[in-house]
Amino acid sequence: MSNYTLFGDYRSGNCYKPVLFMALSSTPYAYRHEDVTVPRTERSDEIQGSSRFGQLPVLIDDGTAMCQSNSILCFLSNRSVLFNFSDYLHRQQVMEWLFWESCNIGKSVSNLRWLTKFSANTAEDILADLRDRAVKDLDRLEQELTSKPFLVNDTPSIADISICAYLYWLKDTGLDTGRWPQIKAWLDRISELPGWFHPDDMPRDSREFA
Amino acid sequence: MSNYTLFGDYRSGNCYKPVLFMALSSTPYAYRHEDVTVPRTERSDEIQGSSRFGQLPVLIDDGTAMCQSNSILCFLSNRSVLFNFSDYLHRQQVMEWLFWESCNIGKSVSNLRWLTKFSANTAEDILADLRDRAVKDLDRLEQELTSKPFLVNDTPSIADISICAYLYWLKDTGLDTGRWPQIKAWLDRISELPGWFHPDDMPRDSREFA
Repeated sequence: MSNYTLFGDYRSGNCYKPVLFMALSSTPYAYRHEDVTVPRTERSDEIQGSSRFGQLPVLIDDGTAMCQSNSILCFLSNRSVLFNFSDYLHRQQVMEWLFWESCNIGKSVSNLRWLTKFSANTAEDILADLRDRAVKDLDRLEQELTSKPFLVNDTPSIADISICAYLYWLKDTGLDTGRWPQIKAWLDRISELPGWFHPDDMPRDSREFA
Repeated sequence: MSNYTLFGDYRSGNCYKPVLFMALSSTPYAYRHEDVTVPRTERSDEIQGSSRFGQLPVLIDDGTAMCQSNSILCFLSNRSVLFNFSDYLHRQQVMEWLFWESCNIGKSVSNLRWLTKFSANTAEDILADLRDRAVKDLDRLEQELTSKPFLVNDTPSIADISICAYLYWLKDTGLDTGRWPQIKAWLDRISELPGWFHPDDMPRDSREFA
């Protein structure tokens, strides 16, 4: 039996990913709130010693620290009967989507949202570039979702959990969300999974999930 | 026995990753040159039908197409005795580095290089932002490499193969490469592995590697 502690911040879609996984799979764990806006060198000793890249989330499994949200999803999924595929080609397709997320939509949409919602004085060139990238990435995803209910093998997987994370906050980017009806329908399908919650309802303080 | 075909372009560090893996592991395969500067909709039917995200590289394994360079490295590594770890925690650390690469150094350095070397008229704000990110990412890597010869478990893995890719071209970014001596020493260590070649020596046309 494992003993998980998860460090995260409620404003981060990357932190929402493993928290959502825990909720959907009814996995018990301790949640520890860590303020993502505190400079990294001023954070608690525990998180500084655990976070290899200085980023959140961090998952501690019986004393072993793991980071990178998509890598944490892989770890949790490998231990789970839910959201996992036995077929290696389906697992490979999940990996492709995770890497696509991390260098595309998880970068374009997440940065655009953060700069639009929490930051100011960002150069317009940079915002325009992010908007272009986000629209391109969302169009790509929209196209994929016209022909299938979930990203891999017609069933929910960590590919969906990873990619949906920032998209429940799409309105925060200022983009016209009406352009992507298939994405909207897919987000609705995910939201019907037992245990699902909106990222706005992320825990805002430390607590135990039994 | 597998039958690999790899589509790539010699100007892409993402394409260098699997080509380097093939060379270091003496894996036979067919290489197919695909011009990355040709608009995606004008590329050959074969590559358009195979490339899920319209990106290169693409690996075909007995008719099954795989994409995303880091995901391809995972696939190749899972089938290999070289560059693979039996311990799940070491495998997990490799995954963390691969995801770190795809949203950090594989994005900052690669885009900075591409825009500096192959593009023009990029807004200075965007270049400055990329330079900031690249320096931060390189500083992080430099710090890691002060204490170890390779990124995971003191032995070469696909984490090194992935992250080194764009760094042999670091001078193309215009950054002062003298700032990162540990990275230089690590790149030299990788270059001593049997079968290694510089990305400048990527194949420029289609050919068979037996």
